[in-house]
Amino acid sequence: MGDDAHKHAHWVYAHPRAESLNAALRDAGVERLRRDGWSVDVADLYAERFDPVLVEEGGADVRDAQRRLVAADLVVLQFPLWWYGPPAMLKGWIDRVFERGFAYDVPDPATGRNRKYGDGGLAGRRALAVVTAGDRPGSISPRGISGDVEDVFWPLLHGTFWYTGMQTLVPHLVTDVHGVDADGVRRLGEELAERLGTVGAEEPIPYLPMTDEYYDHSIALHPHVSPGLTGGAAHRLRQA
Amino acid sequence: MGDDAHKHAHWVYAHPRAESLNAALRDAGVERLRRDGWSVDVADLYAERFDPVLVEEGGADVRDAQRRLVAADLVVLQFPLWWYGPPAMLKGWIDRVFERGFAYDVPDPATGRNRKYGDGGLAGRRALAVVTAGDRPGSISPRGISGDVEDVFWPLLHGTFWYTGMQTLVPHLVTDVHGVDADGVRRLGEELAERLGTVGAEEPIPYLPMTDEYYDHSIALHPHVSPGLTGGAAHRLRQA
Repeated sequence: MGDDAHKHAHWVYAHPRAESLNAALRDAGVERLRRDGWSVDVADLYAERFDPVLVEEGGADVRDAQRRLVAADLVVLQFPLWWYGPPAMLKGWIDRVFERGFAYDVPDPATGRNRKYGDGGLAGRRALAVVTAGDRPGSISPRGISGDVEDVFWPLLHGTFWYTGMQTLVPHLVTDVHGVDADGVRRLGEELAERLGTVGAEEPIPYLPMTDEYYDHSIALHPHVSPGLTGGAAHRLRQA
Repeated sequence: MGDDAHKHAHWVYAHPRAESLNAALRDAGVERLRRDGWSVDVADLYAERFDPVLVEEGGADVRDAQRRLVAADLVVLQFPLWWYGPPAMLKGWIDRVFERGFAYDVPDPATGRNRKYGDGGLAGRRALAVVTAGDRPGSISPRGISGDVEDVFWPLLHGTFWYTGMQTLVPHLVTDVHGVDADGVRRLGEELAERLGTVGAEEPIPYLPMTDEYYDHSIALHPHVSPGLTGGAAHRLRQA
C-alpha cells in the first residue's frame, strides 16, 4: 500500500470480449485514476488466461496474484453480472487467490483469534465492484424482482470483501446495458470516472465487525443489536 | 422427463477431491434415489474436466450438458460453499449451459413474452442445492453473520432455478463440516437420504411468477403485493 502521496489500485477485470462496453468502462476508469495520481495495475483475467479452477491450494500464478493484490490501496473487481454473480473466471480468481491464512483466518497474536469479518489479511484496503447488467434499473432494486443490489451482492460485499477485512464500497452498478450506443458508452464511462474521482474519500458500507459487542458465540447478532431485523441491513452499524 | 412410473435425476457434482465428505454424501444420495426407483445421471464436473470459462456461446460439451439436463425431472447441484457461492467450476457450468433461448427467454407464442422467472426452458423440473459449509449453524441463519440460507443462496435459488422455470426446493445445507468423523459422515449421509426420500413430493419455495398480477412494468412488485416488504421474503406468495 502506498503513502498519502501515492495511491495504488489493482483493477481486476473479467470479460471475454476485447470490444465491449466493459472494456470501454475499464479504460475510462483506469484513465481517470491515473489522471488523479493513482498507479493502476490491471489484471485482465481472460487475457492473462488465469485458471479459475481450484484443485489444490497454491501455485505460482496464485502467489503472483496475491502479490499484486496486497500492493493495492484500492481493489476494483469489474465484471458483467451473470446469473446474479461474477463470471466463473472471476469467482475462481477469488476461490484460488483469497487463501486461508492469507486473506482470512490470519492469526492475531494479541487476541488469539483468527482475523476475519471486518479484519483479515486484506485490512486497510477498500474494495469496489463495478458491474454491468442487462436488467432494467427497477428490477434490481429493493422491491425489484431480482432483489436489491446490496442483497444480490451480499456474498461478494459482506462474505468476501468485508470477510477479508476490506472496506466495502457501494457497488457501481450499470443497468440496461443491451444496445447502448456510442454516446451511451461515453456517458457511462464519464459516470464511472466521476465516481472514481472521490473513491478514496467515500464512506464505506458500515458493516458490523465480528466482535463480542455485536455477535454471540454462534456468530449471530445479540438480541439487542438491530432488534427484530434480518437480512443484510441487520449487519450495519446504526446510530444509537 | 419421465412419466409417473419412472423419474430421472441429474446430479451435478463439483468437488475437487475424490475422498471427501461431499463424495460420501453424493454416494448416499444417489444410492437412495436409485433404491426408490429413480434413474440417476451423475455429472462429476471435475472428473469430467468440464471447462467452466465462457468465452463464446455453444460448444459440443455444452450441447451434451444441456441434453443431460433437460432429461431430468430433478436437478441436484451439490457443492462445497466457497465464498458464499458455488465453486467456479459449478458457476461456469451454469454460465455456459444455461444459455439464452435454452434455459430462459424462450419465446412463448401464446403471449409474445420471453419465458423466465417461474417459467422458462427448464419448467417442469425441480431443483435442489446440496451444500456443505464450514460455518457453524448459527452463523448461516436469519440473524447470523453470514446471512440467512435463503438470502445467501438468493442468486442460485431465485435468480437461476426459478429464473429458468424450475420449482426451487429449500437447500439441503450441511454446516460445521470440518473434522467430521466416520460416524458423522454416515449420519449426514442418512439425513440427506431421508430428505431425498420425499423430494418428489416436497413443497417448493412459493416464489411469485413474473406476471402483471405481481410485478409492474419495471419488474418491481406492485405496492399492494407484500406491502412494505423488501428482500427475498417479499417475492413469496402469501395467503390473502
